[in-house]
Amino acid sequence: MTEISSTPRSVTVLGVTGSIGRSTVDLLLAEPHRYDVEAVVSGNDVTALANNAKQLKAKLAVVADPAKYQALKDLLAGSGIEVAAGDDAMAEAASRPVDWTMGAIAGTAGLRPTIAAVRRGGMIALANKECLVCAGDAFMREAEESGAEVLPVDSEHNAICQALMAGKADEVSKIILTASGGPFRTWSKEDIARAKPENALKHPTWSMGRKVTIDSASLMNKGLELIEAHHLFKVGLDKLDVLVHPQSVVHGIVNWSDGSVVAGLAPADMRVPIAHCLGWPVRLSTHVTPLDLAKVGTLTFEPADEDRFPALRLAKAALAEGGGAPTVLNAANEIAVAAFLEHGLDFSGIPALVETVLDKAKGEGLVRAPQSVEDALNLDREARRIALASLKRPIAHAI
Amino acid sequence: MTEISSTPRSVTVLGVTGSIGRSTVDLLLAEPHRYDVEAVVSGNDVTALANNAKQLKAKLAVVADPAKYQALKDLLAGSGIEVAAGDDAMAEAASRPVDWTMGAIAGTAGLRPTIAAVRRGGMIALANKECLVCAGDAFMREAEESGAEVLPVDSEHNAICQALMAGKADEVSKIILTASGGPFRTWSKEDIARAKPENALKHPTWSMGRKVTIDSASLMNKGLELIEAHHLFKVGLDKLDVLVHPQSVVHGIVNWSDGSVVAGLAPADMRVPIAHCLGWPVRLSTHVTPLDLAKVGTLTFEPADEDRFPALRLAKAALAEGGGAPTVLNAANEIAVAAFLEHGLDFSGIPALVETVLDKAKGEGLVRAPQSVEDALNLDREARRIALASLKRPIAHAI
Repeated sequence: MTEISSTPRSVTVLGVTGSIGRSTVDLLLAEPHRYDVEAVVSGNDVTALANNAKQLKAKLAVVADPAKYQALKDLLAGSGIEVAAGDDAMAEAASRPVDWTMGAIAGTAGLRPTIAAVRRGGMIALANKECLVCAGDAFMREAEESGAEVLPVDSEHNAICQALMAGKADEVSKIILTASGGPFRTWSKEDIARAKPENALKHPTWSMGRKVTIDSASLMNKGLELIEAHHLFKVGLDKLDVLVHPQSVVHGIVNWSDGSVVAGLAPADMRVPIAHCLGWPVRLSTHVTPLDLAKVGTLTFEPADEDRFPALRLAKAALAEGGGAPTVLNAANEIAVAAFLEHGLDFSGIPALVETVLDKAKGEGLVRAPQSVEDALNLDREARRIALASLKRPIAHAI
Repeated sequence: MTEISSTPRSVTVLGVTGSIGRSTVDLLLAEPHRYDVEAVVSGNDVTALANNAKQLKAKLAVVADPAKYQALKDLLAGSGIEVAAGDDAMAEAASRPVDWTMGAIAGTAGLRPTIAAVRRGGMIALANKECLVCAGDAFMREAEESGAEVLPVDSEHNAICQALMAGKADEVSKIILTASGGPFRTWSKEDIARAKPENALKHPTWSMGRKVTIDSASLMNKGLELIEAHHLFKVGLDKLDVLVHPQSVVHGIVNWSDGSVVAGLAPADMRVPIAHCLGWPVRLSTHVTPLDLAKVGTLTFEPADEDRFPALRLAKAALAEGGGAPTVLNAANEIAVAAFLEHGLDFSGIPALVETVLDKAKGEGLVRAPQSVEDALNLDREARRIALASLKRPIAHAI
């Protein structure tokens, strides 16, 4: 709305064919004159990637899988769109100068291209969790050095980001992330321990990928988000908290030193936080159906139970410990979730494995602070190795 | 916390012995080194006024009632505190140069001193409703001319003020004020029509004066707050809304153009919005018990029903009509509430009388925009005259 520059914003979308990428494309196409799309990058879905590249009039399309290079080239033949493939090409695409980058490549695969974008500077809408969970200190240091502005896409952090505008950093008394509580919110400890993948995959409010759905069921997802919040907002665990809120309407809450409370709410539509990042520092006009609290009717809040959900306790402990502990926690959890999904672990085995791996990694002297993103990736690999070796039954494929 | 100047903030408190005044004194006394109290002003409670003047080390104490001058003088003998009484003295006290003024003299009596403070400039924490409801255009014009910064104390407007910090004025799509719904929230239209003062005076969440409690029961209070919000935030009725929220935890909500929603919440303690105004533009640290949403548990929201609560519809219509209509509405409502409390009107007679007076005032050509605060006060008197003349049974005393 106000003061939107008449010069189009130059944009690159890393992870254009995923769920966040698709919502981003939707917003870009709603007002195409506002954007100049430099590069679009995707894992292996070349058909969708080629379509996006054409719709968005991108200058460059990159597919992660080098085996898909020719297919992409064929699909874009005659379009004038440059084509590339592989890890180096992704990093090169991410480092091309643009005003704004969507960092939505999931998993550790997203680390290298996202960090390339951060090094180049500008605004980075961050949807990749691992940048902060696995390599938070190094990632934020890179952002500070380049002057890159990290804008969180996650609905919780995005809401907090907006609520934080009502004051100054040292006036914050508490930052609270809400959690839906997942499908086991009302289950007993014993029933949670015996839960099957088909139970855990029934998320009450959001439709997400399998990994994050399991993490939501264990509350590990919220634990990882606490670690992200620590890096994004530069606050310690003493100023962070989790509140279970099954309706997922209030996403984040800031308590201020004077007793005032400011909360960020949104309808369940990822275009809302993405639009906030895409327009930043001004707000776009979207056609998202506005939140209607009278229709929602009831919002409930309850404390998070770390006894029934030990993953949250483990994540808090890793955050308190700092150094490489969050990196190890995250890697061990990935293996544990994969093992659970393949029925190689009980649901209670997930936090148990994470705790075992954290202890072993400490025993091996591995839990030191990663000095760089490469260092964090090495620790991530070590932790996965320990986790795999700690499994009673091997798993077919890590996720 | 941050950047609080080492020079004490000079402060005047208009209405120091009322409920808002007492909470303000509480905050001032919590960190007395931060404030230099210039003047304290009160209606007629000279004992409390003298105590406050001494505790706060004020330079001047003014009582509204001239008959109380000697009593106040005796109470402050030997204290070195200057003493004065009467309307002119109140206005003089309000116009003395200070950084910050609390405008908490209730009713139309508050208009003259508050406007004197606004003319002088500086920050005005506004707790008086009539300044905006009865003379909003003139009041805000005076503030603009002097550069005075009007900070709303009312919990709803204060919450909205905080939520509005998350964006720019023209990025707002809706400003929503919450209403507790009052004691008749679940009553039928017929039962509401027959409600007695003793029913209406049972407010579910706040303990307030009789007039505002009746206004809460009729939802006229929320209607008057819509008129205030219009002046404070410079938005039309198309961007204003009311949501019934019986728990009174969320006080105000801002919907943004991109679909994001930011809400202001607070515990039920008026020190919170007052502290926000007193510290502005930084936040103080208070010892108010923080809001605990897990303890609150459930928040509910429902639409406001203008059929059962026609006062809200009338206030919206007056706001839409503009000019002198809100002034007439407010004056007629005051008489109507007084008549209801004296059993001279049924509860349904309150909006009926307001509507009658609005029609008659229009018929008499009175509903033109007041050009000044004096003009608004004249219209207020005319409207009261019409209202009194429209009553079937005269009332013993207006409130």
